[in-house]
Amino acid sequence: VPATTPAEGSVALAVVPGDGIGPEVTAEALKVLEVAAPAGVKFEQTRYDLGAERYLATQEVLPDSVLAEIREHDAILLGAVGGKPNDPNLPPGILERGLLLRLRFELDHYVNLRPSRIYPGAVSPLSADVLGKGEVDFVVVREGTEGPYTGNGGALRTGTPAEVATEVSVNTAYGVERVIRDAFARAQRRPRKKLTLVHKTNVLVNAGSLWWRLFEQVAAEHPDVTTDYCHIDAVMIFLATDPQRFDVIVTDNLFGDIVTDLAAAITGGIGLAASGNVNPDRTAPSMFEPVHGSAPDIAGRQVADPTAAILSGALLLDHLGHPEAAARIEAAVIDDLAARTAGEKRSTPQVGDAIAARVAG
Amino acid sequence: VPATTPAEGSVALAVVPGDGIGPEVTAEALKVLEVAAPAGVKFEQTRYDLGAERYLATQEVLPDSVLAEIREHDAILLGAVGGKPNDPNLPPGILERGLLLRLRFELDHYVNLRPSRIYPGAVSPLSADVLGKGEVDFVVVREGTEGPYTGNGGALRTGTPAEVATEVSVNTAYGVERVIRDAFARAQRRPRKKLTLVHKTNVLVNAGSLWWRLFEQVAAEHPDVTTDYCHIDAVMIFLATDPQRFDVIVTDNLFGDIVTDLAAAITGGIGLAASGNVNPDRTAPSMFEPVHGSAPDIAGRQVADPTAAILSGALLLDHLGHPEAAARIEAAVIDDLAARTAGEKRSTPQVGDAIAARVAG
Ligand SMILES: CC(C)[C@H](C(=O)O)[C@@H](O)C(=O)O
Ligand SMILES: CC(C)[C@H](C(=O)O)[C@@H](O)C(=O)O
Repeated sequence: VPATTPAEGSVALAVVPGDGIGPEVTAEALKVLEVAAPAGVKFEQTRYDLGAERYLATQEVLPDSVLAEIREHDAILLGAVGGKPNDPNLPPGILERGLLLRLRFELDHYVNLRPSRIYPGAVSPLSADVLGKGEVDFVVVREGTEGPYTGNGGALRTGTPAEVATEVSVNTAYGVERVIRDAFARAQRRPRKKLTLVHKTNVLVNAGSLWWRLFEQVAAEHPDVTTDYCHIDAVMIFLATDPQRFDVIVTDNLFGDIVTDLAAAITGGIGLAASGNVNPDRTAPSMFEPVHGSAPDIAGRQVADPTAAILSGALLLDHLGHPEAAARIEAAVIDDLAARTAGEKRSTPQVGDAIAARVAG
Repeated sequence: VPATTPAEGSVALAVVPGDGIGPEVTAEALKVLEVAAPAGVKFEQTRYDLGAERYLATQEVLPDSVLAEIREHDAILLGAVGGKPNDPNLPPGILERGLLLRLRFELDHYVNLRPSRIYPGAVSPLSADVLGKGEVDFVVVREGTEGPYTGNGGALRTGTPAEVATEVSVNTAYGVERVIRDAFARAQRRPRKKLTLVHKTNVLVNAGSLWWRLFEQVAAEHPDVTTDYCHIDAVMIFLATDPQRFDVIVTDNLFGDIVTDLAAAITGGIGLAASGNVNPDRTAPSMFEPVHGSAPDIAGRQVADPTAAILSGALLLDHLGHPEAAARIEAAVIDDLAARTAGEKRSTPQVGDAIAARVAG
């Protein structure tokens, strides 16, 4: 995959801090990005105020003109969007569908990349017995542009006792094959070279057959990759009892959403989980964001853990063709985690400063 | 809810042992049922050989005449169905859709009931820190007759690079309201009286609005029940880090499938997880089965843990109006679990005998 951005020079970065803790964690991610960037690489930032606050003030979610501007950037860094739970002025899905998913769909982020590692020092909710079996280090390649997230479906006789509401999962050979190919390529670059398809082929037989057929077909071209299949329900059991078995997982948009939150939970919480919404063909900028939400309950107090946002910055650097800089950030995070002590209370900028200092020094 | 079966007399029980370990665990469930049944209650069993073996031998999955016979029973006890993984002679979904789901749909099992308790002595993969927060004891009410399990959807240009495959989640006010009502009634009968709706209303906005609206509407009639809402992805995190927060969960067919396997994993494995496919209106027999599958890899060796099947028998007794007998089985299982020692290897009948002896004695 060729990098379209120059190894030196300026990187046009669209920054969407968003709501709640979004701006707080984004500031730390930017701080670390600046320090980690290779000599000669400069981030030219443009900020876009999008999210619940803007919507509540202006009724605007993502104006076409803003989308057109964002599209001209090399990459996007997003904090988190979302208002207070059950705010009557924020209809459910308005920001998710209108902003987050619209960006993913319009910018063709068909690879939603979510690395899951238990770093030394991270606090996992799993027992010592399970953790003792070995290192947990896998990555989920979640399809990002189709499946149950298309917004297809509708409702009839809404609000009446005769209502029927449907959600249509749309799966195309085009969309499934490309994400499976990307997952095989990623598996091939990892030491274990193992790829697990996750679906529910025994019930969702139409979509399941398509995923299965293309998985088998692309597998035949990758004899060096070990393949495996798990139903989504069985994955729940394996993630809780034997997460070591996974190396790369490929799955659809909704299963991926579910699997990656459990993966985040077992690897130390969504305070650490980074993600990239990647357009591997580079026809539009990719977008990097922590898996966590805007956490309005703790916003404005500088108590959120910015690590997930910082690691999302590492994914951004990697995507832009700077894997060494990305590795430096990850190493700094690993060191910072190892140095954390139970019960310590550092502020958001203190964590950012500590990680930036490790990257610099 | 009135019991249609007499407190005394014979209970017509359809037994579907199924494949793999199914017959082994079913034998133990029946053994314990006989011992636990109140004086005067007699099970008249009819066995139905259904499952992978029958399909492979005869190409029959569930003949209409067999379904008609099963329908005449008071209850169904099912072991597990399913053949060897990837058997080319067993098309994916043929048994699941044709047998298991057909029974659930045709017999209107709209409440798929899955209790989740961490019994003392059970081996949970969660850390001592998480378990130390308190008792884990919740029940999942999974909708069983609609949602993404309807088999709606299809495929176009199958097998070509232009294939499109869809899965349609169908949700009706009729179907959603009745399962929500059942869940509220169950929450009301429990000490904590708390009900959590699980969905993905921020993305699946059509189905989500329907579930949300009916949940709010039925909640208004149950002011004594505390209500809560969680996105399916957030539930993953809570089940791993704070399972104590749940009392009763109500959710759709697919989310319920996923949540209950994680619930089974954290509460000690699917060797313990029981389930009831309940028709609360009693227009057809309800069906009780362990959550686990047929485990062909360990079949025929009498090493499977029959506890989940035995606990499914307890759910069956409870449904038939014998809550004390059901409680006796559960108490016997709790005692048996507490007496288990690490590394012990009892055979399937040894576990069944031990639990039966505790019920008797
Ligand atoms: C906020 C929501 C739309 C989003 C998703 O479902 O993809 C989030 O849960 C995520 O995983 O990034
Ligand atoms: C075997 C399969 C069809 C079934 C389901 O998905 O409901 C199983 O996983 C279960 O949970 O009972």
